[in-house]
Amino acid sequence: MSLIIIGSVAFDTIETPAGKKERIVGGSATYAALAASFFTRPAIVSVVGRDFPRSMMVVLKDRGVDLRGLKIKSGKTFHWHGVYSQDTNIRTTLKTEMNVLADYRPVLPEKFRSADIVFLSNLDPEIHPYVLKQMRKKPLLAMDTIRYWIENKPEALLKAIQEVDVLFVNDEEVRLITREYNLVKAGQSLKNSGPQVIIVKKGEHGALVFGKNFVFSVVAHPCDKVIDPTGAGDSFAGAFLGYLDSCGKFNQREIRKAAVYGNLVASLVIEDFGLAGLLKASPLDLIERYKNFKKVVYF
Amino acid sequence: MSLIIIGSVAFDTIETPAGKKERIVGGSATYAALAASFFTRPAIVSVVGRDFPRSMMVVLKDRGVDLRGLKIKSGKTFHWHGVYSQDTNIRTTLKTEMNVLADYRPVLPEKFRSADIVFLSNLDPEIHPYVLKQMRKKPLLAMDTIRYWIENKPEALLKAIQEVDVLFVNDEEVRLITREYNLVKAGQSLKNSGPQVIIVKKGEHGALVFGKNFVFSVVAHPCDKVIDPTGAGDSFAGAFLGYLDSCGKFNQREIRKAAVYGNLVASLVIEDFGLAGLLKASPLDLIERYKNFKKVVYF
Repeated sequence: MSLIIIGSVAFDTIETPAGKKERIVGGSATYAALAASFFTRPAIVSVVGRDFPRSMMVVLKDRGVDLRGLKIKSGKTFHWHGVYSQDTNIRTTLKTEMNVLADYRPVLPEKFRSADIVFLSNLDPEIHPYVLKQMRKKPLLAMDTIRYWIENKPEALLKAIQEVDVLFVNDEEVRLITREYNLVKAGQSLKNSGPQVIIVKKGEHGALVFGKNFVFSVVAHPCDKVIDPTGAGDSFAGAFLGYLDSCGKFNQREIRKAAVYGNLVASLVIEDFGLAGLLKASPLDLIERYKNFKKVVYF
Repeated sequence: MSLIIIGSVAFDTIETPAGKKERIVGGSATYAALAASFFTRPAIVSVVGRDFPRSMMVVLKDRGVDLRGLKIKSGKTFHWHGVYSQDTNIRTTLKTEMNVLADYRPVLPEKFRSADIVFLSNLDPEIHPYVLKQMRKKPLLAMDTIRYWIENKPEALLKAIQEVDVLFVNDEEVRLITREYNLVKAGQSLKNSGPQVIIVKKGEHGALVFGKNFVFSVVAHPCDKVIDPTGAGDSFAGAFLGYLDSCGKFNQREIRKAAVYGNLVASLVIEDFGLAGLLKASPLDLIERYKNFKKVVYF
């Protein structure tokens, strides 16, 4: 099996009630790939500038992340600067410096073109067709998006949604896209527009999964230490897809398990700044958390 | 077994995005008792004015609610008028007319004084000792509270909390009482102050249960039709205690089940205005919902 993650590799400057970190490595593809690496050997397709630390590339490779699709270009790496309020579901972007990401068009190395799963993470929806026509076979296609595309390219976005198998959205986004406040109605209505599975991420409240003839609701792992929520959503998606890639099945049973793993890997992320929570956790830690989680929700 | 519910029986005027209802029957004790009546024969201790409809008393009695502790006094029944925003977790009180409830001191009929479970629902915490000294044996004691007592009688409230076995609070209240934003930390810290079980109700996001050596998290039943959230919290508490009364045990296993039933009865309430959702549901409907709920959360 194989999982290709197309998204950003970035520097993040992050301010949360727990403190501030400047220019630490982040990006949606980085989080998703590290999260997926608990289950499989994912590949990143992205671009960084010459300022990106080689040491971090070594770390990613050591975790089994394939970087043959990571282009190094002269110029600076994408940089995001955001601040979180005490309600960590609310964040404000202070600065977005696109840098080398500005005119980037993802080109998949030959070896990636028959991948089983492709994850389009926060991409300009107008770029989706450009990526997909590079594929030699139809993969299981997953995407997530950001408020910016909903507001600025709504038509391209809706077209993109119709074509994917798995869509990740957060509660705010699903309401914006569907103009429906009730999350159950909003999720169902989005599912009716095409995707086989809709995952509505609700931050500290967990996630709702809408599949064929089922709704699955997963609570967030009770966490008494929320340090930095950056990348939690990307990690949810990465772990979800990484798990599906590893088991090679796409049925209700595995989709539920994938969502639980997504949820639990996201809970590792928020316990520290940036990638630290993911990097210090072992697969054994995750298995332990999975076992404990049953005790949290079973009755 | 026996369950005594001391709280308000009221008229509510309710405005939600789904419509407006004037002076329909409500009150914390009414909701809690009807919710408990799915499992046991609860008793209400409260007061109403002569304007309270006898037809509703018949309805309550038909559901097995014991009204021997409901005093009818000359004057008007307590009246609350509130409006909900689209985010139904947010409500604004427009009017509170205490009427006959203003100087009410609950007196328990002789037969109720050896009850197994007593629920003090939104009572002035300074009245708790007055009620408790009427009891001939120590019951399992449960309470919930409202923002008003947290802000106006914080010391009496903290003292009351130390003395109960089961405390119901919502997310806003637990943060106010503990001055801790993180709900897991807040719930744990409140548990350390005395109660055996803390239930943090999170509205559309379900509830967190903090018990001896366990945390249980229950998601709200996915609901695509939220009409009126009034009484959902009271019904959660009523069903929780009604279930415990019916099974006669107070261990982890039964506490988890009680929370699931609390959650599911609350989900019946919000699907219609006022008491209508509770009144039209049968025990069979609830069992059906319980079975379906496993499919919503098990993996």
